[in-house]
Amino acid sequence: MKAQELAAGIDIGGTNTRFGLVDKEGTIIFKDSVRTTDFADPKDLVNTVSERILTALNRKQETVNRKLIGAGIGAPNGNFFKGTIELAPNLKWKSVIPMAKYFNEELHAPALLTNDAKAAALGEMQFGGARGMKNFLLVTLGTGLGCGMVVNGELVYGYDGFAGELGHVIIIQHGRQCGCGRKGCLEQYCSNQGIVKTYFEILKSENPHALDELDTDTINAKYIYEKALAGDEAAFYAFNYTGELLGYALANSVIYTGPEAIFLFGGLTQAGELIFNPTILSFEKNLLPVYKLRNKIKILPSSLKEDEAAILGAASLIWREEDKTK
Amino acid sequence: MKAQELAAGIDIGGTNTRFGLVDKEGTIIFKDSVRTTDFADPKDLVNTVSERILTALNRKQETVNRKLIGAGIGAPNGNFFKGTIELAPNLKWKSVIPMAKYFNEELHAPALLTNDAKAAALGEMQFGGARGMKNFLLVTLGTGLGCGMVVNGELVYGYDGFAGELGHVIIIQHGRQCGCGRKGCLEQYCSNQGIVKTYFEILKSENPHALDELDTDTINAKYIYEKALAGDEAAFYAFNYTGELLGYALANSVIYTGPEAIFLFGGLTQAGELIFNPTILSFEKNLLPVYKLRNKIKILPSSLKEDEAAILGAASLIWREEDKTK
Repeated sequence: MKAQELAAGIDIGGTNTRFGLVDKEGTIIFKDSVRTTDFADPKDLVNTVSERILTALNRKQETVNRKLIGAGIGAPNGNFFKGTIELAPNLKWKSVIPMAKYFNEELHAPALLTNDAKAAALGEMQFGGARGMKNFLLVTLGTGLGCGMVVNGELVYGYDGFAGELGHVIIIQHGRQCGCGRKGCLEQYCSNQGIVKTYFEILKSENPHALDELDTDTINAKYIYEKALAGDEAAFYAFNYTGELLGYALANSVIYTGPEAIFLFGGLTQAGELIFNPTILSFEKNLLPVYKLRNKIKILPSSLKEDEAAILGAASLIWREEDKTK
Repeated sequence: MKAQELAAGIDIGGTNTRFGLVDKEGTIIFKDSVRTTDFADPKDLVNTVSERILTALNRKQETVNRKLIGAGIGAPNGNFFKGTIELAPNLKWKSVIPMAKYFNEELHAPALLTNDAKAAALGEMQFGGARGMKNFLLVTLGTGLGCGMVVNGELVYGYDGFAGELGHVIIIQHGRQCGCGRKGCLEQYCSNQGIVKTYFEILKSENPHALDELDTDTINAKYIYEKALAGDEAAFYAFNYTGELLGYALANSVIYTGPEAIFLFGGLTQAGELIFNPTILSFEKNLLPVYKLRNKIKILPSSLKEDEAAILGAASLIWREEDKTK
């Protein structure tokens, strides 16, 4: 029988944990998910996920023997150097959790863990639109704003492992209060929560009581997107303002690492031209001319499917190590 | 006779070109300079500098044979990938000059060229306070503001070679007009020209005719420094404002590459505490808390002597390549 090598990709999110088995071409041959919030103890989540992965792996095959070469884990506040999740604001487990060690013990395979946005950047480089690129940025526009940066073909971790917290670049001094304790951070403007705040501000500026009639808890980027499509000017302007600030922030970001392309990923990018057009316009306007000399820096949507990217990104942690040892 | 390997270090500045011969411990065994502006044709500068370097190299030695292993060149708008100086605003040669090729031909040794701030960062890593560091920034505060960034032990060049143009991060939207065509760039505030503009603004805000009595062309950072020491409040406040913006910009910069330390270098740093104190205060205030978790990120003066750093930095281009091949 032939042997098929597979990597597990596990993405631990605030709401759901998605996981799967990925071959070296990036084909997901099994995928599943559980609700993260169902597990009061992270060890229980590890047990359940590992059991399902091993069951899928060992399912009787007629022509191939499957072999698990490792497990890659993406998680908010994931620390690559230590394999731990540290005080993630979106997870209810509040201590430092040695997640890589837990999975290593249950799966009997090497386990590597990284921050979710960094995993997404790895996935883009291994299986997506960044194949062959040595210098690029990937920005995730979800509830918050995350970033994975690749320089000279390697993810940038920095001295402490915390490089790339782009969501906390101060974009407007003395601006909106951020959860980090500072004011004016990028993710207070360019993210799901950011565009909702902008939309509310616009509505209130037109009518101080505008929010009284709305069920504000149900309003998210998707709602604003649908409003904009239906001709709501406030919603349209909210996307414009978000793109304008994002383009400005990306033009400043280019200066640090000189990327070939910037990939945008996550919820907000589903709005397509509504977010990409103002972002690109503002990016070009604010870009230092020297970066236009030879090649345009491209702003592109991630080429990975939204529901597969997280698993592929996490599995890339293993496939990249595998590539290096060859 | 013993053989002594030496690298030439050549720093081409807007006013002076400094050059020397450097051994692998960073000892400068010969140094000299010419006025850059004396040479209408860059080839004439190359000829003169090369002749003096070769004369020094071949001066009769009793106990050692000297061997030139290569020449490193630092220059404004230096392009490492092409070995060219490209449209440098501070140099009167306005075309694209293949400077590395010229020196290679005259010195009969390999020649490498890079941007002057990147050379300074290499010098700090090879011979200065950044020895052993894999992730740090060096910021030069001269006429303008330059930056060399080291990530994973390597200088960051980016896709086009233009990474690190920190002087052109927009720090104040719609701020001061910059020579690059955009507004609010960092070097319009945090540099020699920047602090002069700030000082003039403060004087004018106190008295609209304040500048009429001054010989404004002679005023530079050194003048403002001496004024501040003598108790001039406007001068003192100019340093405070410069440091406040610099600290804020550095706190934002940390987010991209997560450095272990930031080195400050060049004219403005001669003001010592007058510039370091407000910079560090603002840096700590604006820093994302996660970067304070384990170790403080240090803001330090360059440990290389002002008049030697440029030669050492340029020579480091050669010594680093030499180290790699061993």
